[in-house]
Formats: sequence, C-alpha cells, structure tokens
Amino acid sequence: MEVCLLEHTPEPDSLIAAAARICYSDVAARDLREREVGRLSVRLLKDLWRSGHHSPFEHASFTFGVDGLSRVTSHQLVRHRLASFSQQSQRYVKMDRAEVVTPPSIASDVEAYTLFREQSLAAYETYKSLVAMGIPAEDARFILPHGWETRLVLTMNARELHHFFDLRLCRRAQWEIRELARLMLGECRKAAPVTFDLAGPSCVRTGRCLESRPCGDPYKNMEDLLATDKKQANQNQAE
Amino acid sequence: MEVCLLEHTPEPDSLIAAAARICYSDVAARDLREREVGRLSVRLLKDLWRSGHHSPFEHASFTFGVDGLSRVTSHQLVRHRLASFSQQSQRYVKMDRAEVVTPPSIASDVEAYTLFREQSLAAYETYKSLVAMGIPAEDARFILPHGWETRLVLTMNARELHHFFDLRLCRRAQWEIRELARLMLGECRKAAPVTFDLAGPSCVRTGRCLESRPCGDPYKNMEDLLATDKKQANQNQAE
Amino acid sequence: MEVCLLEHTPEPDSLIAAAARICYSDVAARDLREREVGRLSVRLLKDLWRSGHHSPFEHASFTFGVDGLSRVTSHQLVRHRLASFSQQSQRYVKMDRAEVVTPPSIASDVEAYTLFREQSLAAYETYKSLVAMGIPAEDARFILPHGWETRLVLTMNARELHHFFDLRLCRRAQWEIRELARLMLGECRKAAPVTFDLAGPSCVRTGRCLESRPCGDPYKNMEDLLATDKKQANQNQAE
Amino acid sequence: MEVCLLEHTPEPDSLIAAAARICYSDVAARDLREREVGRLSVRLLKDLWRSGHHSPFEHASFTFGVDGLSRVTSHQLVRHRLASFSQQSQRYVKMDRAEVVTPPSIASDVEAYTLFREQSLAAYETYKSLVAMGIPAEDARFILPHGWETRLVLTMNARELHHFFDLRLCRRAQWEIRELARLMLGECRKAAPVTFDLAGPSCVRTGRCLESRPCGDPYKNMEDLLATDKKQANQNQAE
Repeated sequence: MEVCLLEHTPEPDSLIAAAARICYSDVAARDLREREVGRLSVRLLKDLWRSGHHSPFEHASFTFGVDGLSRVTSHQLVRHRLASFSQQSQRYVKMDRAEVVTPPSIASDVEAYTLFREQSLAAYETYKSLVAMGIPAEDARFILPHGWETRLVLTMNARELHHFFDLRLCRRAQWEIRELARLMLGECRKAAPVTFDLAGPSCVRTGRCLESRPCGDPYKNMEDLLATDKKQANQNQAE
Repeated sequence: MEVCLLEHTPEPDSLIAAAARICYSDVAARDLREREVGRLSVRLLKDLWRSGHHSPFEHASFTFGVDGLSRVTSHQLVRHRLASFSQQSQRYVKMDRAEVVTPPSIASDVEAYTLFREQSLAAYETYKSLVAMGIPAEDARFILPHGWETRLVLTMNARELHHFFDLRLCRRAQWEIRELARLMLGECRKAAPVTFDLAGPSCVRTGRCLESRPCGDPYKNMEDLLATDKKQANQNQAE
Repeated sequence: MEVCLLEHTPEPDSLIAAAARICYSDVAARDLREREVGRLSVRLLKDLWRSGHHSPFEHASFTFGVDGLSRVTSHQLVRHRLASFSQQSQRYVKMDRAEVVTPPSIASDVEAYTLFREQSLAAYETYKSLVAMGIPAEDARFILPHGWETRLVLTMNARELHHFFDLRLCRRAQWEIRELARLMLGECRKAAPVTFDLAGPSCVRTGRCLESRPCGDPYKNMEDLLATDKKQANQNQAE
Repeated sequence: MEVCLLEHTPEPDSLIAAAARICYSDVAARDLREREVGRLSVRLLKDLWRSGHHSPFEHASFTFGVDGLSRVTSHQLVRHRLASFSQQSQRYVKMDRAEVVTPPSIASDVEAYTLFREQSLAAYETYKSLVAMGIPAEDARFILPHGWETRLVLTMNARELHHFFDLRLCRRAQWEIRELARLMLGECRKAAPVTFDLAGPSCVRTGRCLESRPCGDPYKNMEDLLATDKKQANQNQAE
C-alpha cells in the first residue's frame, strides 16, 4: 500500500487556531489572514481538543491518494461518511493485472500463501475468460477475490481524521485499515504537527482503553505506536 | 435478493405535510399531532418537491432489512452517506455456506455460469482450508469472490430515498443496485404513497434524461419501470 | 417552551438491538421483523453504547414539535447538522403577537424584567410601524429582539440525540437549550427506555467531567438532573 | 458586509480533475501529484458537472472569513449542514458597539431608517443597562435586535458551494444571503475558474427557472448577475 498527501489546506494549525479565536474573542474575520502559530496557539489547540470543542478543526482539509488497498478495506473505509471519496471503478476500468492484497497472516505462512496465490490467479483467469466470452466487466468482477487491489482519492477534515485515527489505530482494528491510518497520520503530522500531536487511539491519547474487549497490550505512547507498526510493516514487506 | 421494510416513521405523508406547514403558516407545533392528509396535502407535497423545498421530506425515515445482496453492491450502497447501515461482519461471522450472487448476464449463459460456479466453489474451499490452517476468518475472506452475499439493515429518510431512487433506478445504474432500488420503492409506495408517487429516475419524473450518455431507452412512466424490471427479475430468477 | 414527540420509529429499543445483531451473528434480515427486547437486549444495548459501537442507534428516529423557543436558541440548535429542521419562517409569516422569551435571570429581577418587557414591546411597535410603511416583513424583522419566539419541527436519530444530550444537558450549556434537552429526554425515555437510560452529560453517565472549566457542581445521577431542572423550570414559570 | 477567502485547497480545478480521472481510468493515485489543467480538464469538469457526477468536486475546500453579517442571515446560513462554521459567540463576547445590519429597503427610506436606527440604539442601551445590573451577557442579548452583526469563519467544499450558489443567488433568496453568495462566488471564481464557471442559479446555468413561483426577471447570464447585484450593492452602500 502506498499513501501520499496530494493537497491540504495551507497552514492548517494556524487556520484552526484563527477559527477558534473568532468564537471567543473580539477579532475581525478579515484580520485572520495575518496570523501565526506560536506557543499560545499550541496551548489553544490542545485546550480546544481536550475540552471537546472540536468544530474549529473542521476547517482544515487533507486529500490523500491511496494505491494498493484491498476492496475488503475500501468497503470499510467508505463507511466514514464525513469524508469524500473518488475510487477506481471496476465497472468502467477492466482489470488487467492479477493484483490481490495478501494479508500478513497468509504471507508469513508458506503453505497458506501458496494456496492463496494459486486461487487468486485462478480467479483472475476466470475473470478474463468471462470477459472474453462477452460478459460485461462489471459482472465478471463478481468472481474476483474480495482482496483485489483498488486505488482512490480521499479527503477528510482534521476533526474527522482525529475520529478516524482514534478508531482505526486501535490494535483491535483490522490490520490493513490500521496500516492505512498509520501512513496517513505520518503525512498529517508533517503538514499540521500541532493538530495531529493530539491524535491517536485512546490508549495513546489518554492512557485509558475504552474498548469493551481490550487488546491487553495498549500502546505506551505515539513513538511506540509508530515504531511497532513500522516494524510489523517491514516484516510484512520482507515476506 | 430479499428486501423488507422493518419499520418506518408512522404516517409519513401526513408528518411531512405537517412539517412543511409550520414553515409557511401560523400553526402551533403541538397542534400538528392531529392532522390528516387530504387533497390539499397531496397538492402541498407535490408543490414542495417540484419547487425544490425538500427538507420537510427528511422527517420521515424508513428502515429496511436486505438479504442476499452481493458485497460488490453493498460497497456501492454504503457510498450513500446520508444513511445508516448495519452490515453483517465478515470479521466476526464465519462464512459457512457457498453463497455468491450470480449476475443475470452470467446466469443466462450456460458456459459462463459453469465457469463462475466452479470458481466460486473453489474459492470457498480455499477459504475453508485457510481457516482450518489457523488463518483468521478476517484474513481468509480476502480470497472469497467479491460477489459474496451479505445482509444488512439500512435506514434512509424520504429525501435521501428520493435521491437514491433518482440515481439508482436509471437504466445506466448497475443491475443489482437497480433491483434493490426497485424493491425498496415498492415498499415505500405502500407506506407513503403520496411522497413516493414523486420518486424515480428523471425520465419518469420529468420526461427528460439528464445523463451525458443516455441509455436510449427511457422509461415511459412508473408502470413501465415497475413492469419492465419485474419481467427482468422474473427472468433472472427462472435461470 | 413546549415540547411534544410527534412521531418516532416504532419499538426503537428492539429495532436497534436487531440491527446490532445482524452485524455480529448469522441471522437473516427478514427474520428481524419478529423480535423482542428482553434482558439480553438491555445488556446488548448497554454493551454497544459503552464500547463505542454507536451506529446501530442511528436506525431509530424521533420527531419533535417545539413551541415557544427563542431564536437565540434555535440558532444554536440548528448547528446540530445530523438532524432535520422545519422552522417557522419570519420571511413568510408576519409576527402578530409580542412574543419574546424572557430568560430566568431577567424574569426573577423586577427592575430588569420591566426594562426588558418595555423594550420588547417598543421593538414590536417599531416592527409593526415598518410593516405599515411598506417595509417587507422579512426586513422589518431585523428590529425584533433576538429572543423572539419561534416554533419548529425537529428530527434526530438516537445516536445524535445521545450526542445532543451529552452536550446540552451539561450545566455549562445555555439554560434554554438545556431546558429543551431536558424536555426532549423526558419524551425519549418514555418511547425508548433502554436506549435513553444511557443518555446524559458525562457527569451522569460516567461520574467524570470532561469540560476544561467544570461547573463545580456535577449532577449526582439522572434523578438529580431531572429533579433539579424541574424545580428550576417551575421557578421560572412561577415568575 | 465583508468577505475574504482565508485559505483554500491549492489548485482546486486540477485536483478535482485528478480525482475524477482515478474513477474512470487506469492511473495510479501517486501519479496524480503531477498534473495540469488544460483543455481536456476544462471539458472533463464540465462533463462531470452536467452529467451529475458531482462527488469529485468535494475534494476542494474553501474557507471564508465574513464580517458584518446579521444574525438573521447567519441563522439561515448555518442551516447548510455540509459545511463548517466558527461563529463569534454572544455568550462569551460582550457586545460593545451598536452594530445592526440595515436592510436596503429600510436604508433607502428616511422615515423608516430613522425609526429603525432609534430603536436599535434603544435596544443597545437596554442591553448595556441589563449587563450593568448584573444580568449575564448571554441573557441580556435576548433584547438585542435580530439584525445584530456577527462574524464567522465558514468552510464549504466546491460541491456544496455549487448547491449554495444555486439556491442563494436566485432573486427569490433573501437579499443579504444573496449578497454573501455573490461575494463568495467572486472569490471562488478567482481561485478555481473552471469549477465555478459552472456555478449559479438555474436561470444562469440552464436558462430555465425551477421555482414554483418564479421572480419573473431571470438573469440573462453570469455577467448580468454580477453586474446587477454590484449596482444594487453600490446603491445600498451609498445610502
């Protein structure tokens, strides 16, 4: 999977702080063009988030390009309704390479991987035969594996991204959407360091787990989260 | 595919008319408990819809149960963001029957059907083998065909349903979501006849097609739409 | 202020439990028509809510009629975006009675009340003079007090209602929207006792306050919340 | 009223075209970083919009600062739910200047204006007296005129902006929100000329009026709209 930040609202931290200031002080909207993020803004953003005043975080929006995600996971991803998606259509674009995402649990088991790979290729052969027989691509795709790769452009604002990172970086989240979230968070932290220093699953943000069935191995902090998952990702790639 | 209307806001036509009345006349909200739909309300609802005052239609909500929809189509369905979905999880529920939706274009071609069916069963065998080898069900499902059946509960309000029917009853929509829309519209017309007498693709509603690439065979009217698709559906079922 | 529950999805507790069951078990959607809420459902709904699986609560929707709310507060109310509103228009309906909501802090102070009342009447006289001079009602209303009464129909689903009650029943919320929330919660608890037994501000739900500037006087429990506010409301009415 | 574009997604036209391309062609998401808008993109954006494929327009977002809008109109503005708002609070910020928006119909009539102005000042005096008597600002504001000025930061994406311009630039829309829409459209046309060349009320976009009660004087084209309203705005300012 590959994730890139295509575009984002310029100066997100500073814009969010400015929007918050208009709510609680006597400053003109036109004067918000000139602004800076200093210590006060860092404090302001943290206070806002912690006290539940999340709406100013909606003004900054982030657009990502994602390649090599499975359709299993894109199905789950598009359940986030406060977001915008443009996804490669399997109705209009014919599949012309055998591209299936292999889950790490399968990639790391030779026997399972062999089975999985053979079956993927057989499904792709059937797809091609059906298309050759005149079946429309939009119908032939019913036989492709659910793990087939897709690509998409997705936009979320910083508030929804926080919500996304809260849910999807939890160890109990499905591994692929967790990896997507980790890569997106990396990009976000470069573009808006103050805003996304506050993001993460509840174990990282608050030290407490809110899941009814905890994973039993909460992240110690953000570094732990990023390091652990990077190691896991490298492992996956190696196999 | 099977669709049933599980619950809906009682007396939808009358509630929508009442909500519209509060906007434009001097009537107390508490007096809206007693109300009736007569000729004036039919006229009122039609005028509202045609002049683009659609917000009163949001007060009536409809909850459907859907069985036997493919995950190809549920992926498309959940792109409707002004809606609520509860869908059977393939993470937590193990698949224990070989259930794939067969597109009509495949069902009606013996050779294609044979190929499709064999591949579906082979994919299911691989799924079971992977699970037996200790691969988690949530990973093994990557090999299941995308046309695998799912079930879900879905809620939309009458405004979003109109939007859904507009898009998804068009002949250029994918056949399975079109069939879903037709079955949902049938249920809606029983529960709220005035509200849904106004629904349908633009050819039915206005006599004009707005697609850039028209199908060339617009529906003449609602009866044509319901009859045509019913015939097609019966055909599908027969095969 | 007067609040009535105009309509709601029938059997909300049972519908929400059914929608949750389809996610995590192998039950057909069509079989959800027959269902009951027993002990297991109470437990299920509580577990769902507490572990953050809130989406099944969206299937049940509640439509309220509200009379005698100020436009100060309706402005705040319509900021809830996952909701539907039909509000009396001041563009199309001429105001023909001097109806202003009096805040309790003013109602309980004779001098303040006299000033407030005189000014309200003077503003209304100006409104009538402007209309008599040919100024359109939609422009003359600019002079009416912001506390002018309005009426509206509002629909929210159970998930958004929980969010609304969480925010708006907090003692730091503005008094009028807090009173609205209290009256709405009363109606909801009759219609869906299990679902709304879980609602309230964080002090009531969890025993912890999450505000950055706590009120210092958290509610002890739901009874305390309902009793305290009822007393306050009676007091307001008496004056 | 003053409107400024505080920030927007960089290169909106090009980003929207790129997002559309991923849906219908075999291009990698990572390759969308390099892109250009040429003739084909202009054609692509127009085709997308006209054929109702509006979702790619959601990826570009625009954040405005607005000063000097009445609370009458901000109440109407925040009814747009697919948008983000941060508005000056009258609970936390004390009003310390008599600032009321004067509708043109009043500004252009000496007698009406005198009445309106006197009443505004009297209301403001009452507000100050109430605050001096110890009434909280959040309650004293109930007596301020509904036309009181507010300021806010607002973000909408290009799809919602199209919807906003469609509704709010119609001559039947209220004059102040129409003026706001005109100023916003001016900013948008500079930042994303292709995208917003397609915007406007239905008379401008399609030559047809869809209102049930047409104004009888549809705009001939975009230039007519901008010129007419500019003249009207100058007139208003002169008075």
